[in-house]
Amino acid sequence: MSIAADVLAGNRLALSRLLTQVENDTPEGRQALNTLFAHTGQAHLIGITGAPGTGKSSLANQLARHYRQSTLRVAVVAVDPSSPFSGGAVLGDRIRMRELSGDPGVFIRSMASRGSLGGLAQSTAGVVQVFDAAGFDIILIETVGAGQAEVDIARLAHTTLVVEAPGLGDDIQAIKAGILEIADILVINKADRLGVEQTERALKNMLRLAHPIPHVFLHHGKLERVTAAQSPIEATQPAIWIPPVQRTIATQDEGIQQLAAAIAKHKQYLLDSGDWQHRDRARLQAEFESRIQTALVNRWRAAVNDSQFEQTLTQLISRQISPEQAVKKLLNGNAS
Amino acid sequence: MSIAADVLAGNRLALSRLLTQVENDTPEGRQALNTLFAHTGQAHLIGITGAPGTGKSSLANQLARHYRQSTLRVAVVAVDPSSPFSGGAVLGDRIRMRELSGDPGVFIRSMASRGSLGGLAQSTAGVVQVFDAAGFDIILIETVGAGQAEVDIARLAHTTLVVEAPGLGDDIQAIKAGILEIADILVINKADRLGVEQTERALKNMLRLAHPIPHVFLHHGKLERVTAAQSPIEATQPAIWIPPVQRTIATQDEGIQQLAAAIAKHKQYLLDSGDWQHRDRARLQAEFESRIQTALVNRWRAAVNDSQFEQTLTQLISRQISPEQAVKKLLNGNAS
Repeated sequence: MSIAADVLAGNRLALSRLLTQVENDTPEGRQALNTLFAHTGQAHLIGITGAPGTGKSSLANQLARHYRQSTLRVAVVAVDPSSPFSGGAVLGDRIRMRELSGDPGVFIRSMASRGSLGGLAQSTAGVVQVFDAAGFDIILIETVGAGQAEVDIARLAHTTLVVEAPGLGDDIQAIKAGILEIADILVINKADRLGVEQTERALKNMLRLAHPIPHVFLHHGKLERVTAAQSPIEATQPAIWIPPVQRTIATQDEGIQQLAAAIAKHKQYLLDSGDWQHRDRARLQAEFESRIQTALVNRWRAAVNDSQFEQTLTQLISRQISPEQAVKKLLNGNAS
Repeated sequence: MSIAADVLAGNRLALSRLLTQVENDTPEGRQALNTLFAHTGQAHLIGITGAPGTGKSSLANQLARHYRQSTLRVAVVAVDPSSPFSGGAVLGDRIRMRELSGDPGVFIRSMASRGSLGGLAQSTAGVVQVFDAAGFDIILIETVGAGQAEVDIARLAHTTLVVEAPGLGDDIQAIKAGILEIADILVINKADRLGVEQTERALKNMLRLAHPIPHVFLHHGKLERVTAAQSPIEATQPAIWIPPVQRTIATQDEGIQQLAAAIAKHKQYLLDSGDWQHRDRARLQAEFESRIQTALVNRWRAAVNDSQFEQTLTQLISRQISPEQAVKKLLNGNAS
């Protein structure tokens, strides 16, 4: 029996082995992914992104516990190197996670962040596909949410939670403008901290600024996002998603039920509006294009003449030719 | 007279125009870069990286003022979207920066972070080359230092400062392990805050963990980095760079002189050990490879058959073929 068949049959050890193969991009992993891919497209992919210190991991942990109460199978993919799921945690967190990891309906995978982030996005996509094919209903993807590359990883998701916490300082929030654009739900975790009102006000103001004008307008004082589904044909469908702001205290399990309800509502919105398929398509197209890029570079590397490469590089370093001229020289001298 | 010649002649308006051209990757910008490239390699590139809230921009500001006292010409390149140099600042910061920007020996450029971070790294490299050719002695490159891509931008530098501040929380520091590996100098800014001893201890502990074993050993209780220059042939040269930890209070101009002295010492170390050339070579090779990648993708895009691309994408989205199979199908059907 192939490893793909074992994974489809629910073999946990095979799953664990395959995840490693996929993460290391081995031939066995690639072959299994080709087989498993036809079984993907069922899971609800939920991105959880935010700065270190906002409590993303505790939130993921509590959401996983919540979904387990309704017997849904949950995978957690931690792309954040500072995540407790990756082992870099305070003791209390680690104990909570360990409790979760004893549950056969839960699988936690921490991505090693070696290599480029482009490579990381690609292997994360593969890992998510394996979980999806293996029948996990909910896949929580935790990313640190600080740079564009992390945002790209968050874009893997159907539903993206952007997590904030009071008292992290205004300057920390300044960086978030780009990230707010991808938020489907805003979570203010650690909501028992001082300054929660201020954080909520700041987030709502930033939301107003962050969303590009063609997609957002103010209606009765509320921020609303206009989607393609607003066309007259679908006028009876729920046409607009207003990113809600949810308060939680993950460590005390407060607000988790309400957050899960907001996530469920967003899923329903995605299905009704056609955005579910739209995001699925966008995700696969992005992966496709990233893979084409990698394949082109690999093919070229295999074909390039080493001594010509070295010679060109030497001319570049001695400033005889510019970077652009070096590239032209090398590519035109090579028919790959 | 060409724009490149104008820039070499010290024309500030031409410099400003060319920076925009280079950032937008226009044909005029590319042509000027080809001409200017032969004049690069003189400036000391100093990366300043750290989380929002650590006061990187104030530090860059004070360093620039310091260098101006010795008539060195200083360029500041801000890649951080939350940087005061990019306009997203508290008023006090903006006033300090404006003061600086009235000085003809200083040029401040904020990079728009549109597009991919790969593209941003490339256009930042171009902007730095323009400043270098234009005769700026010191180029300060400010990045947010949170993800791998930002780290890649920081790698542009000869000397990398990693900035920390007390009281940002332990969980924030956890993310830094990867960034500490690229630190040549650690700066604890806002050193008048509570917890500065704790931060310094934590940093020193993390340094011990972050550096890979082959390059680091403990010697008389001190952390030391071993370089290639430690070979017997060069035994008389200063062989080891110990990343020092410097305390500063940038807003009060405290510790800046000592920091500048550490930077000067690092430059001397780079020159003596041969690392200056080594880093120069590594930087140009990285830019070269990134440009080759872009060129390969562009060439392929121009040659690809649109309908075949769409057909393959449709098969992918309907899960008839996997991402890997889609790439194989498209690349083998195309001779580019």
